[in-house]
Amino acid sequence: MQDWNREAVTKTIERSLDDRDLPAVTTAVRPLGSTEIVEVLERLDGTQRAVLYRLLSKEQALEVFEDLDASLQSDLLGGLQNDDVAALFAEMDPDDRVELLDELPAKVARRLMQGLPWREREMTASILGYPQGSIGRRMSPEFVAVRADSTAEVALSRVSRHLVDAETVYILPVTDDHRTLVGVVSLRELMGADPQTRISDLMERAYPVRATDDAEDAARRCADLKALVLPVVDNESRLVGILTVDDALRILETAETEDQARAGGTEPLRQPYLTNPVRNLVRGRVVWLLVLAVGATLTVQVLSVFEATLSQVVALALFVPLLIGTGGNTGNQAATTVTRALALGDIGSRDIAKVVAREFRVGLSLGLLLGSVAFLLATVVYDVSLGAVLGLSLLSVCTMAATVGGSMPLLASAIRADPAVFSNPFISTFVDATGLLVYFLIAKLVLGV
Amino acid sequence: MQDWNREAVTKTIERSLDDRDLPAVTTAVRPLGSTEIVEVLERLDGTQRAVLYRLLSKEQALEVFEDLDASLQSDLLGGLQNDDVAALFAEMDPDDRVELLDELPAKVARRLMQGLPWREREMTASILGYPQGSIGRRMSPEFVAVRADSTAEVALSRVSRHLVDAETVYILPVTDDHRTLVGVVSLRELMGADPQTRISDLMERAYPVRATDDAEDAARRCADLKALVLPVVDNESRLVGILTVDDALRILETAETEDQARAGGTEPLRQPYLTNPVRNLVRGRVVWLLVLAVGATLTVQVLSVFEATLSQVVALALFVPLLIGTGGNTGNQAATTVTRALALGDIGSRDIAKVVAREFRVGLSLGLLLGSVAFLLATVVYDVSLGAVLGLSLLSVCTMAATVGGSMPLLASAIRADPAVFSNPFISTFVDATGLLVYFLIAKLVLGV
Repeated sequence: MQDWNREAVTKTIERSLDDRDLPAVTTAVRPLGSTEIVEVLERLDGTQRAVLYRLLSKEQALEVFEDLDASLQSDLLGGLQNDDVAALFAEMDPDDRVELLDELPAKVARRLMQGLPWREREMTASILGYPQGSIGRRMSPEFVAVRADSTAEVALSRVSRHLVDAETVYILPVTDDHRTLVGVVSLRELMGADPQTRISDLMERAYPVRATDDAEDAARRCADLKALVLPVVDNESRLVGILTVDDALRILETAETEDQARAGGTEPLRQPYLTNPVRNLVRGRVVWLLVLAVGATLTVQVLSVFEATLSQVVALALFVPLLIGTGGNTGNQAATTVTRALALGDIGSRDIAKVVAREFRVGLSLGLLLGSVAFLLATVVYDVSLGAVLGLSLLSVCTMAATVGGSMPLLASAIRADPAVFSNPFISTFVDATGLLVYFLIAKLVLGV
Repeated sequence: MQDWNREAVTKTIERSLDDRDLPAVTTAVRPLGSTEIVEVLERLDGTQRAVLYRLLSKEQALEVFEDLDASLQSDLLGGLQNDDVAALFAEMDPDDRVELLDELPAKVARRLMQGLPWREREMTASILGYPQGSIGRRMSPEFVAVRADSTAEVALSRVSRHLVDAETVYILPVTDDHRTLVGVVSLRELMGADPQTRISDLMERAYPVRATDDAEDAARRCADLKALVLPVVDNESRLVGILTVDDALRILETAETEDQARAGGTEPLRQPYLTNPVRNLVRGRVVWLLVLAVGATLTVQVLSVFEATLSQVVALALFVPLLIGTGGNTGNQAATTVTRALALGDIGSRDIAKVVAREFRVGLSLGLLLGSVAFLLATVVYDVSLGAVLGLSLLSVCTMAATVGGSMPLLASAIRADPAVFSNPFISTFVDATGLLVYFLIAKLVLGV
């Protein structure tokens, strides 16, 4: 069972699709579960995907559709008939539906909304009322809540009535008679309790998030707490929805793809790598490269200023890549460490003074170590004055780079910008230019040129 | 409730601890849940942490201990009495216990194991039998399994008997009469079914992992499937444990911290940022910096070879940082994108030919765009031959960098090494040296020097 060979099966299906041998495709797909079909679909190109999807049984098609990324869902809808689209849309969970609506052209979205049964339309509209990027948009309104003054027996019978339509029944939010959230209770606790026990005696503290909170922050909180469910409340602490751990995982996966892409200086891909045309890959990278290249012209300007010094001591040019490379690495180390600590909540923007002080000391230590090594080596291979220039430059550049690299993510977070805006490539570019300036100033001073 | 102010509370507690005003500390801690106390503990230094921990009530102390990272647990144990340590150790879940054992000196670990009650020792020893880094080490042996040929009623009564000791009861592995895993069934399904329904009619397909599988891969699979529980089986498909989503999240968090640290060229921190002494931060970075600096001496050698060319045309030196910076950025973009696609399972090592072909085309397109811009600008500002040198160099460097950057993570994965080994700083260093070589070769050719 665990030996399902995704690559071989995908290859067989791809080949059969290329040969337009549809019966062979059906045979290859039959033994697969919806999870496997999704994995295969994510590796096919657009046309192949549409063909394979239409070969699925009605039931399978719905299951598979629900598990696809919203961008692939939207792609697939284009190839289906209006009736089929409306049926699929009505079957979806309200939160998944809203995610898909965000992907569709406004006209199509409006038409689909109008086709929904009343209750589904109401629930969908209530989620759509929250701002984009907030957890209100991604929460599920299909929860089972229990009252604090009721009993375990009453709560269990409530659970039994909602086994089918609730998003989850394993962790239940507990409210008072004003719909205000007062705690959570687990199904396990309910099942183990005497039927007459009051919920207020069984419940535990809830860690709610607000519907207007940032979706990524809320999801991160869910993952941090290792909670199966977080209740979502409005500004008056009234329960309005729940965030389940599987939805939190979905949000974090997208958020991490984005963060990592930006940290690497590219726009995030909106689709799996192999399904993306090359021109999309180029588009996602070229703007960043151009912006960074414009930033890098600073280095050309700094070097132009010192062109006379350079032509007097050409040897200085030999160490430019080594020096700015080390500066960039030191800055990136600090930025990576601080960004991760921020993401994990180990530090916050109020810690900036502490972080700057720590990174200054780290940078100084690194600079002393590397600077001494460089001084010794360069003195042996070249001469003592070049050794002094290199050693002092590394000392200053490392100290500066660690301090700047460590404080950038915190500054970003203090002004409520994405720390990835001041990402590694930007730090490198900044450190390159200032590092060169320091290097040549020290060189002029020590060598007297 | 959601307005708990971590920073203010931590500050109050820190100040009271500094003043040795223990009653004030107790007052500040009293309203906090274990989650909040863990967050406070993670921000204190070692001594403060030990003092605060000893002020907790016995019950709170156990709850808090279970939620701490293994490295902090091990730190805390040092300050406790042997009896307290043995009691804490006996109360832990077997999987958490194994994680802690890995942190402790062998002698302490042996003594603690001998002090365990028989059943707990057996369970712990069975987990310890799996190789380090495997999911067998991190799974829970405390699961409730049901037989495929029994009924919903029987299964529910089995669940009721294990409400307290099982790791989870919401998803139950289903086995045949040889303990072979044949599926999973949810508690929700059991509760909704007619009591006489056979489990074999209720169960769904299971997606098991093998106990010897890499822990990170297994956890990633759990997160990908958005599963609350994955069954863990041995090589004969017999059920040996379960992996719950909260443990999967814990594994992924550590793994991601490590990956991100390595991608940024530092050793991962084993403790929260602020609790780490500066010398640890320095130690985690200096080796990488030195290795990278040694790699960067390649650039010095390349430049030495072309020292004569440089002294003839000093202007060539002006563009060195711009050129190698752009090459590094292009390489890192490709590496970041491919590494993420690998992590998400969108591509595998068998796709290397496809990826190289795609990245070659992406690099060529980027090189054509950037090279043309550089050619035009440099021709206007300097002259046409320098323009040609820069344009052609960018074209070659971008193409080479994207191809190398895109294939490195796949090569690493093909030889079963961590893709982070060929991380961004290494790609930059490699691209720096080869880029310089290309630049000066083109310069000699075009300028005829």
